[in-house]
Amino acid sequence: MTVSALIIGNEVLTAKVTEANGAHLIRRFRERGVTLVSVHFVRDEVDEIIEQYLACRKRAQFIITSGGVGPTHDDVTVRAISRAMKRDVVRLPEMAARIRALYGAQPPHAESFRMAEAPAGSRLIPCGNTRFPVLACDTTYLLPGVPALFRVQLEAVLPELPGTPVVLKQLFLNARESEIAATLDAVALKRPHVAIGSYPTWGEEADHRVKLTIEHVDAREVSAAFDELKAALGSFVIRES
Amino acid sequence: MTVSALIIGNEVLTAKVTEANGAHLIRRFRERGVTLVSVHFVRDEVDEIIEQYLACRKRAQFIITSGGVGPTHDDVTVRAISRAMKRDVVRLPEMAARIRALYGAQPPHAESFRMAEAPAGSRLIPCGNTRFPVLACDTTYLLPGVPALFRVQLEAVLPELPGTPVVLKQLFLNARESEIAATLDAVALKRPHVAIGSYPTWGEEADHRVKLTIEHVDAREVSAAFDELKAALGSFVIRES
Repeated sequence: MTVSALIIGNEVLTAKVTEANGAHLIRRFRERGVTLVSVHFVRDEVDEIIEQYLACRKRAQFIITSGGVGPTHDDVTVRAISRAMKRDVVRLPEMAARIRALYGAQPPHAESFRMAEAPAGSRLIPCGNTRFPVLACDTTYLLPGVPALFRVQLEAVLPELPGTPVVLKQLFLNARESEIAATLDAVALKRPHVAIGSYPTWGEEADHRVKLTIEHVDAREVSAAFDELKAALGSFVIRES
Repeated sequence: MTVSALIIGNEVLTAKVTEANGAHLIRRFRERGVTLVSVHFVRDEVDEIIEQYLACRKRAQFIITSGGVGPTHDDVTVRAISRAMKRDVVRLPEMAARIRALYGAQPPHAESFRMAEAPAGSRLIPCGNTRFPVLACDTTYLLPGVPALFRVQLEAVLPELPGTPVVLKQLFLNARESEIAATLDAVALKRPHVAIGSYPTWGEEADHRVKLTIEHVDAREVSAAFDELKAALGSFVIRES
């Protein structure tokens, strides 16, 4: 079971804000062992959102979107995702009631109710300490782009995403990548399910030239691959973790 | 003329590194006025890279990739992009010679020459103070994922990317987004080429509740939209920039 994320908004691609939601989601997914296959930053353009959503659907069972769910002209996420899912856009009575409550005695502006719109068949996930529940349609979750709100809502989504924490071991080497490539090839071929990463340093202060990462949900698989690599790369190994 | 970026590598999606290249590229493109339509973080998987590359091609004339160009088993970018472009993978003699020179008297490992591989028809763009020129194939640029090297190579690519710096004006408002949505609708409809962004604050220390951004390459268009918004939103305006 895998997840893709769509971070929607011109402000990210034009450097008006420093992107925070994608980075936060990556960290939280990692902590929970949720498999993230891709993250996409796209503009506030209906056609582009639809195309990317459909592309993600091929790889990921769950999709999280960030941004474009407010009441202004540049908030097009609900419209785009509804079209991609071939659903009508409907007004959710529960959200409309929340918006009325938010305004109190004063009647809300007509445009406020844009925030009650959703793809037909959507549900609301209660979300602890905010007035806004998470908008979910099947396994697609439409979160707001405002970072503080995104974070709160993401915590309400996490229990619905299957995850198994991965085990990670690392080897730090004094070697060129090309010197160890044949060994990595052999171990990676023998243990295709174990994720083996090789990361050279360059222009950094570091005690090593290459870091190897060995990961899998099964600790025994990780230990086996780790031991094989350590044995084969013996003289290059500076330290391990 | 637009650009998309593909940031390739499991290490980003699994939070093993804090992503730096996408963020750097966004800032530099902004400074140069290069239009970036999307940024995609994908895994070291040939099929996923091919699919995303082809999807980007529909929207963007230029594509920058980051990562996956080293000599180890998890470096699959050249293979994936070659297949997406329907080109053979070839060994570039100039790169092979550079690799030999790098090793000096000692003969390079066979795996070193993987870094001389490229899609057929590629060219090398000289790159000031590094030993590695930029690998370019038509309007696709394959940059390394190591941040220090990515940055140096990006500077060598920028002169090939068309850009026109945009003019930005901003209005800071004390208003709910729903109160101003109708005004934004009207101005955005009247001036569809001007990019008008609306960004609420939430849980932040700020003197305003909404920031409006008005952007275009033509300063007169920006001023006209800015003046219209300021006049219509008069009492909400706290400050401008």
